Amino acid sequence: MSTEWFGFIAGGITTISFLPQVIRVYKLKSAHEISLIFTILSLIGISCWIAYGISLRLMPVILWNSAAIILATILLYAKLKYGR
Amino acid sequence: MSTEWFGFIAGGITTISFLPQVIRVYKLKSAHEISLIFTILSLIGISCWIAYGISLRLMPVILWNSAAIILATILLYAKLKYGR
Repeated sequence: MSTEWFGFIAGGITTISFLPQVIRVYKLKSAHEISLIFTILSLIGISCWIAYGISLRLMPVILWNSAAIILATILLYAKLKYGR
Repeated sequence: MSTEWFGFIAGGITTISFLPQVIRVYKLKSAHEISLIFTILSLIGISCWIAYGISLRLMPVILWNSAAIILATILLYAKLKYGR
């Protein structure tokens, strides 16, 4: 139970870390410095983590990566919109 | 065994995703758009994932997050150097 909680905290922090990055890019209306490969690889990697979490029934891995995929998608959109 | 491999792939992709972002920032010598809170929260979150991986003996979680912490530290250094 305590390790489960630790996973929730770990996943929460890494997922929430995307939020200030997304906000910053939209605020500046510029994503020139953001790597397109970073955003695409993040999306692919997060999808794999969700599959890994489902296969091992690790709830924190599933839940937080589901939230992360939304944030990473918003960041990819910003990169495509403000990236040049 | 197959799920273990899946975790290695998932961790590998999310960790390696940091690399092009680090390279881009050093190439441009500019990290104005990179969020300082993003880099700091990433470091804290990755540290928590390592602790979670150790407590549940999940090798892919431990290994890849150890690599990720190095890349995130390099990104934080770039932010502090080129961030303004």
